[in-house]
Parts: sequence; C-alpha cells; structure tokens
Amino acid sequence: MTANSNKPPSLLIREDWGEGAQEPTHHSLLPTSLRDPASTNVVWHHATVTRARREAQNGHRGAIIWFTGLSGSGKSTLAHAIEEALYQRGCRTFVMDGDNVRQGLCGDLGFSAQDRQENIRRIGEMAKLFMEAGVIVLAAFISPYRADRERIRGMVEPSDFIEIFCDTAIEICEARDVKGIYKKARAGEISEFTGISSRYEVPENPELIVKTGTAELNTCVQQVIDVMMEREIITTANLNHESSKKV
Amino acid sequence: MTANSNKPPSLLIREDWGEGAQEPTHHSLLPTSLRDPASTNVVWHHATVTRARREAQNGHRGAIIWFTGLSGSGKSTLAHAIEEALYQRGCRTFVMDGDNVRQGLCGDLGFSAQDRQENIRRIGEMAKLFMEAGVIVLAAFISPYRADRERIRGMVEPSDFIEIFCDTAIEICEARDVKGIYKKARAGEISEFTGISSRYEVPENPELIVKTGTAELNTCVQQVIDVMMEREIITTANLNHESSKKV
Repeated sequence: MTANSNKPPSLLIREDWGEGAQEPTHHSLLPTSLRDPASTNVVWHHATVTRARREAQNGHRGAIIWFTGLSGSGKSTLAHAIEEALYQRGCRTFVMDGDNVRQGLCGDLGFSAQDRQENIRRIGEMAKLFMEAGVIVLAAFISPYRADRERIRGMVEPSDFIEIFCDTAIEICEARDVKGIYKKARAGEISEFTGISSRYEVPENPELIVKTGTAELNTCVQQVIDVMMEREIITTANLNHESSKKV
Repeated sequence: MTANSNKPPSLLIREDWGEGAQEPTHHSLLPTSLRDPASTNVVWHHATVTRARREAQNGHRGAIIWFTGLSGSGKSTLAHAIEEALYQRGCRTFVMDGDNVRQGLCGDLGFSAQDRQENIRRIGEMAKLFMEAGVIVLAAFISPYRADRERIRGMVEPSDFIEIFCDTAIEICEARDVKGIYKKARAGEISEFTGISSRYEVPENPELIVKTGTAELNTCVQQVIDVMMEREIITTANLNHESSKKV
C-alpha cells in the first residue's frame, strides 16, 4: 500500500502506529500532497479533529448553558424549548437533566450534600466533553450549591459557561408540583428536598435571571438566545439557517 | 405575544410551562400551522429533538464503536485515525479514551477490579448519551473484563454497539511501550497492570478483530469503516460527502 511494505516489521509499526511521535501530525490517510514533505516518517500521535474544527463544521461554538433553580422552576422545559429553537437553526445541542443522568451516569448517587456534589462534578466533566465535541450543552439541574456551580465555571474558559438562574418562587413551584414531589416532601416522605429540607444557594452573579415563574416561555427562550448571541456562541448565520426558514 | 396575555397568571403558567401535560407536544415556537388544531392549550413537556431527528440532521446514525485491547495495542491511534476519516466525510464523532476521561469524569477512580468496573460503567453511560445526541462514539479503553463490555452492549440496541478487538501481542505492545509503562510494570512500580499483573479477557464474539500489531493503520481503518457501512451507521452518502472530495 505504501513504501513501508518493503521495510522490516519493526519500522512499519514505528511509522504507522505513532511510536516516538512528539507532536500531533496528520496521519497517512491524508493524501501525500498534504503531508509535510520533510516527514517521510509520518507518525500518528493523537487527536487531529479539534474543537475548533468541529465548531467550524457545526457553524457555532460549543458551550455549557447551565440552568439552576428549584424543582419545578422550569429548567428542563426552558432547556428543551431552547433546544428545539436551536435545532431548527441547524445547531448541535444536548439537554442534560435528571431524566437522562440520574438513572444512568449518576445512578449510584443519592441526595446527600456529598452525593449532590459528586453528581454535579460528573455532569460538569461530561458537559465539558460534549462542549469539546462542539455541542451546545443545555444542563438543567437544581445544582443548589454555589461552590459546585462555580467549580464547573472554573473548569472551562469564561466565555464557555453561561449560568442561568430560573427564578421561580417556591410557592409557584409547589403549586405546579408536576411530579407530586413537593407534596411528598411536605409530608416528610422525601428527605433533603431543596427549598424545604435542604438549602438552595441563589446565584450571586449569573449571566441571566429568567422569571420562569411568571414570564412566558417564549420570552425566556428569547432572553437566553440573546445572551448566546452576545457571547457569540451562535451568530446571525444560525438565525438565518435554511432549516429555520422552512418552518 | 400570544393570546395568553389576556388570561390570568395561573392559566398562563399552566399553558406555557407544561404542567399537566401527558404527552410530549411541540411548543409555541412552532408556527401555528404545525400545531395540533385540537390543542388550543399547547403544552410543553419534554424533549422534541429526538435521536432520530439528530441523525437526520447529521446524515448518519449515532453508535458506539468500542475498541478493547492491551495498553499499547493501538486503540487510541486507530480511533483517532477513524475520526479524521469520518470528519472529512462530514460525520459527527467523538473519541473517548484515557486521556480525556481518566483525569476528569473518572478522576476519582483507581485500577482495582472494582474501580475498573465503575470506570467502564460511567464511560458506557456517557457514550450512550453521546450516541443519543447522534454522535459516533469511538471509545478506546483497555476494558479488560468481558462482563463490563457485555454490560455496555446490553445497554443499547444490538445495532448500536460494535466491539473491536485490537489484537496486538503483548510482546509488540511492550516493545512499543510509548509511555514507558511496561518498563515500570515489569519493575513492579505499577501494580494491577493489564497483561502483566492483571488479567485481560479476550473478546469471544467481537464484531471485528483488527491486527493492530502487524497490519498497516490504513488497512485497519478501512476494516472498521466497512463494518460501519454494513451496520448502516454510515452510508455511501457519507463516503461521497463534499468535504471528502476536497482532499
């Protein structure tokens, strides 16, 4: 297949499988014309598909949009509404919330302070990898502790993390009580319930506060989209995306 | 913005934030023409951007390609080479390996049998979410235990999981010793080292065995691509993708 075939196996291995590589270089799948002519020993080390190349492919930046607030405050609903809006604009997104994390990745964790901390740590690490894959992560978690949220902010570049406080009064959350869990918490059937028997630390400097208790959903969606535009996570090119014109 | 604005706040909340929703429905960002005319009370429940819609957007299926084999067998190198080839064909991929998981998501885990099991469990759960996001996951981990690999296979549909055994003799892995870790393992400086002081369970029925010790990298890449074609994870449309014509 290449000139390598006349060489002894040890050299063949050395050249094709990257041993001794000091720098990431393009591998032999690339046509000869794209290779560094000085590198007859083309070696392969690691990732060539970088975040920047993925973002160029997607037409938007990867980022972590972090929704925090009480149970029933509207975090997941808002995240899914934004996801739909962004999908129609050709963006790659993923919503992480209790529904897809608590049964799986964090299925071994409970709701003690220590377990909540580990829960958010793992989600943060996973969100970071999705972001590096060029995806706009919409993470919707109560995430009651300021320190845990700040830790995730500190894991990425300042422009990569947007904290959104879903500011819904507990009375409204409790009146909604979609899953019937406030009733159970009041009856003492659920311990360590945020806002009742476990503390919620209000964000001090979130990028955005949305009034998910009283404002309309579309208004909140637009507010988040506006912040994403300001941060240049998405651009007018996304808003004018052809698939968004179809609808 | 909508007719809701004339209604009392409690109804407004009820209609816009999905309380009482029994079925996932499209939200009010969708144009009126796409809404169910019977549903004047359009409610919002959960995800509308499904795996199927993401796959349609990407032009290929999501999947988990799982590379198993000894340290130094060529798993990461092969995964990255495949990623480059797929990127050039417009595919969305992500390589997971020790480099981006062991410091982050699994940074709290060691190399005991129990920790290895938990390591692979978490990776499997994360890989599943990437797959649901429409991504082709290229997971390159020693993953020495058959039961752990089978557990991940069992988490997804049969067509979603491809196990690839990177079949490189330990003598070749040790001769390569890219990271100098075989030397340390032989010196007893690393305990529980797979192939030396910890067991590796060879896959019994992998979808593919690649001879990453002796075959050329390009040959192995092509073998994996062929299996992905057979499984219809990618199609000839991907292979003929315009960005692949540029190079």
